[in-house]
Amino acid sequence: MRVQRVLETCLYVDNLDVAEIFYTTVLGLTLDSKVPGRHVFFRCGDAMFLLFNPCTTSQPGGDIPPHGTLGSGHVAFATSAAELPAWRQQLQDQGVPIEAEVTWPGGGQSLYFRDPAGNSLELATPTIWGLPG
Amino acid sequence: MRVQRVLETCLYVDNLDVAEIFYTTVLGLTLDSKVPGRHVFFRCGDAMFLLFNPCTTSQPGGDIPPHGTLGSGHVAFATSAAELPAWRQQLQDQGVPIEAEVTWPGGGQSLYFRDPAGNSLELATPTIWGLPG
Repeated sequence: MRVQRVLETCLYVDNLDVAEIFYTTVLGLTLDSKVPGRHVFFRCGDAMFLLFNPCTTSQPGGDIPPHGTLGSGHVAFATSAAELPAWRQQLQDQGVPIEAEVTWPGGGQSLYFRDPAGNSLELATPTIWGLPG
Repeated sequence: MRVQRVLETCLYVDNLDVAEIFYTTVLGLTLDSKVPGRHVFFRCGDAMFLLFNPCTTSQPGGDIPPHGTLGSGHVAFATSAAELPAWRQQLQDQGVPIEAEVTWPGGGQSLYFRDPAGNSLELATPTIWGLPG
């Protein structure tokens, strides 16, 4: 048995409303659905990107097993090398500081920044993993 | 500007060696690389699935911004409906309890279980999100 691909990637945030604005306006994610105080779900490629309020989802008792984390999670989104200058401009226009920028020895580049909850986000060329860019 | 897809999905674990065995033997993930005490990286579809030890990665000072969480994160992996019976058998054979099983009102199914660090894992048909199964 072999897992084929990731269907849901999750991060946890303290303020879902602020996070929804950030992920839609800064990263252009498509809102799928939301439940106030619990979650905001986005579509991203052929998969889902999910934000949860851990204060809610870590409570046991529902049909879905509890989960929830504290601290800074990490997600990288794919970008092309050609789009990186436009992403730098987009982050600057939106007032989002670039925390680090890495040119990898094996090829490819990454931009690092934070979401409003402090999660570490990355825009990276798939070439950093030897994947088609 | 619009993010196209997720390139890196991460979870945090307290014991990387135990987690590596779990993710390779139970879920059949392909090991990419590892640094003892810091991380174990897997390939999964056209993207990466990364496990980190938060005690290491949350320390500031390196070129890469610090990140790390405590608690139970969540990742869902895609499976076909046809493969679900074999996954149930695989989890049973590997001694991994199924914590919950959900048949969604809109179609599709999910199996929930835990990794050794307590993260909530899910095997789900993409149809639960209206995505091609």
